[in-house]
Amino acid sequence: MIAPPALFADLYSLTMMRAYREAGMGEEAVFSLYVRKLPPERNFLLSCGVEDVLDAVSNLRFTDDDIAYLRSLGQFPESFLDYMRGFSFKGSIRAIPEGTPVFPDEPLLEVTAPIDQAQLLEAMAINLVQSQTLFASKAARIVLAAQGRPVADFGSRRAHGFDAALSGARAFHVAGVGATSNLLAGRRYGIPVIGTMAHSFVEAFATEAEAFDAMEASFPETVLLVDTYDTLAAVRDLIVRAKTRGPAFRVRGIRLDSGDLAALARDARAMLDEAGLTGVSIFASGGLDEHEIARLVAQSPAIDAFGVGTAMSVSNDVPALDIVYKLVSIGGRGVMKLSSKKKTLPGAKQVFRRFEDDGTIADLLCLAEEQHPGEPLLVEMMRDGGRITPRPALSDIRDRAAAAIAGLPENMRGLACSHASFRVTTSPKLEALTRSVEDHVARMNKSEA
Amino acid sequence: MIAPPALFADLYSLTMMRAYREAGMGEEAVFSLYVRKLPPERNFLLSCGVEDVLDAVSNLRFTDDDIAYLRSLGQFPESFLDYMRGFSFKGSIRAIPEGTPVFPDEPLLEVTAPIDQAQLLEAMAINLVQSQTLFASKAARIVLAAQGRPVADFGSRRAHGFDAALSGARAFHVAGVGATSNLLAGRRYGIPVIGTMAHSFVEAFATEAEAFDAMEASFPETVLLVDTYDTLAAVRDLIVRAKTRGPAFRVRGIRLDSGDLAALARDARAMLDEAGLTGVSIFASGGLDEHEIARLVAQSPAIDAFGVGTAMSVSNDVPALDIVYKLVSIGGRGVMKLSSKKKTLPGAKQVFRRFEDDGTIADLLCLAEEQHPGEPLLVEMMRDGGRITPRPALSDIRDRAAAAIAGLPENMRGLACSHASFRVTTSPKLEALTRSVEDHVARMNKSEA
Repeated sequence: MIAPPALFADLYSLTMMRAYREAGMGEEAVFSLYVRKLPPERNFLLSCGVEDVLDAVSNLRFTDDDIAYLRSLGQFPESFLDYMRGFSFKGSIRAIPEGTPVFPDEPLLEVTAPIDQAQLLEAMAINLVQSQTLFASKAARIVLAAQGRPVADFGSRRAHGFDAALSGARAFHVAGVGATSNLLAGRRYGIPVIGTMAHSFVEAFATEAEAFDAMEASFPETVLLVDTYDTLAAVRDLIVRAKTRGPAFRVRGIRLDSGDLAALARDARAMLDEAGLTGVSIFASGGLDEHEIARLVAQSPAIDAFGVGTAMSVSNDVPALDIVYKLVSIGGRGVMKLSSKKKTLPGAKQVFRRFEDDGTIADLLCLAEEQHPGEPLLVEMMRDGGRITPRPALSDIRDRAAAAIAGLPENMRGLACSHASFRVTTSPKLEALTRSVEDHVARMNKSEA
Repeated sequence: MIAPPALFADLYSLTMMRAYREAGMGEEAVFSLYVRKLPPERNFLLSCGVEDVLDAVSNLRFTDDDIAYLRSLGQFPESFLDYMRGFSFKGSIRAIPEGTPVFPDEPLLEVTAPIDQAQLLEAMAINLVQSQTLFASKAARIVLAAQGRPVADFGSRRAHGFDAALSGARAFHVAGVGATSNLLAGRRYGIPVIGTMAHSFVEAFATEAEAFDAMEASFPETVLLVDTYDTLAAVRDLIVRAKTRGPAFRVRGIRLDSGDLAALARDARAMLDEAGLTGVSIFASGGLDEHEIARLVAQSPAIDAFGVGTAMSVSNDVPALDIVYKLVSIGGRGVMKLSSKKKTLPGAKQVFRRFEDDGTIADLLCLAEEQHPGEPLLVEMMRDGGRITPRPALSDIRDRAAAAIAGLPENMRGLACSHASFRVTTSPKLEALTRSVEDHVARMNKSEA
């Protein structure tokens, strides 16, 4: 759990809060957090980050130091600072549970609260949901590409800071990644940790054999990194080692981190099998992404598991989502932004998910109070500032995600763009509200101009 | 300052530590952190992150909970856990100061310590230096593109987690970004904070005029966001507003966040000037990156300042650097990895920087003990586990960066790829060591094979 400081907010949220209060604007507002566009490199997004938002919001308090800092800015009177000193969030939050496949325009999270309170959450909510959904969505592709072979997270060193590494490890695990190299992520989230040796370990000894001796002496069931000098020579050495040791030989596997991984794995597998070492597994790593993994899986059944680093940790092909936190309703009045490119839909919403006979996902975007066939995706999770759904176990979120991904149309689980496999349509009531708000805004534009 | 937990390490660092200790390998090693390749989208990298590494390393201690977690993994005997319980880093660190332009193969940081101690720092050091150098290097381009116009960081909401947002704001400031929207970054680092209002504020009121009234009532010197409905109509309204108010009108500026920013800024400027409102500034934001800013600067002198978000916060075109932490020496013996693609250079190093007559940067990569003409870039910052250089003031790092960037060759300060404007050559002594280690490794490979 990340319990972020209340000051993780944009200054403009606080200037707006002050102005709202001084203008007597205490009306209830609804803000909706959603992704505007799905990039062609993603067939779906896997929701993640909502649980951290709920924890953060329910613990959100300004410390005396925070208040002193705000005072130092010279923009806030004591009356406002007093209000902030006593601030706690009193609103409600509905959200799509973590581990759910989601599509553009579908609210990942909706906040209902007096407008100044809802405004305060903007930077925090966008940051947590966008980064973690980004991570989970990338990892889901990598896990799908591995077709059941275990995938481990080796990327914490290349993540954008520590939080990204930690929440990344959690999001990857939600998406089906089995283990992480990072000890803190392992401790914090209970994710299995993995790792044995780096090239530097082999280089630190006078010979590779001495390095393997040392690692085996301390960790008999280790995985040996065999590509420091000559991969297949190291595999031959391993076979000699196994024969010499007899039953005392318990090395679990070898790791290949460079070269033609498919060819090396195939040759190593053949050599190991011929020597009777069928139980020695082959791990592959080194600059892998979902496309490379798909290629390796197609070329070589010899690779048993993958370690993935940078590509997953920074979501390298899509390093940010087009995600927004938009006012959709105030005082019961629908609100929308009219712009050819950035049109928004008014009103608090719900999404009902159904599957067509051919597997196509047919999501219906409607007003929050509507009822339709299918599974409603948004769930009330916070009311009057308190969580009403407990934080689920990570394993439950992971199971939910696995089941949901397994139920997606076949195309959507591949790497090629298949945006035709889902449709998000709007209900007649939402359309009617949209038209009515459009008319209102257009009339206002005219009167303003 | 970020004081990270000791457990921000990869499991393999600890398995190697145990194996080193049990093999009696206490020899002094040197690890070198450097970038292997400069992407064509960057003409230089701006070093950043080293100060956080120094703080983290000098405070690195394992808590009782950390030890209990390590015990729970079932891979570490009590003798090793006792050692970790009493662990503190005793080595030395040399590094290139933050805010220095750097190039491939140049060590950003070198750690000298008993090999198990040096190994422990890997994930932490790579994470902090790669992310912050990535951020600073992207921001430097954006600041250069703005040609003296102020740039503000609006991106904390799209950063990969909170740490990325905070260390990003700091790195952007080092690179010349003037202000941040994030209050916590402002408080933590003393960076000026900026921000007034979002579109939601305008939409929350019945009319744009009422929203502007409210903001102006609370913040007379505000910046009004004028593109919610019709940008130029809002500017006309502002002019009427100014005439009505007379001397009480103190609005500082307007912000444009959508549409044809160059054309809108030009028209708005003309209208404001004609009305005598020459003091009202024009801020531009909305999906900007260095290329868009360069285009706007070329097209329209009317834009006074820029707000930049996602592109800077995730370094969208280069979301990760090819950065490594490599063993280069152990027990005084040079170490290198021999591979056509990933060749490393052995030995602890220094870099001497000189400028050719035509401005080209001629960096000499040499052994740490060598002396050559030019400015030595690496400085000893930690000895026997303690900092020997105090953490510099952020403003000093920023000034150093500004001076260094101003001294770069003209081409390098543009956006087009100009990798010909620097050369990194190796000294004869480094070359001799490289050949000798190559021979040794080649002999060993042969004897192993």
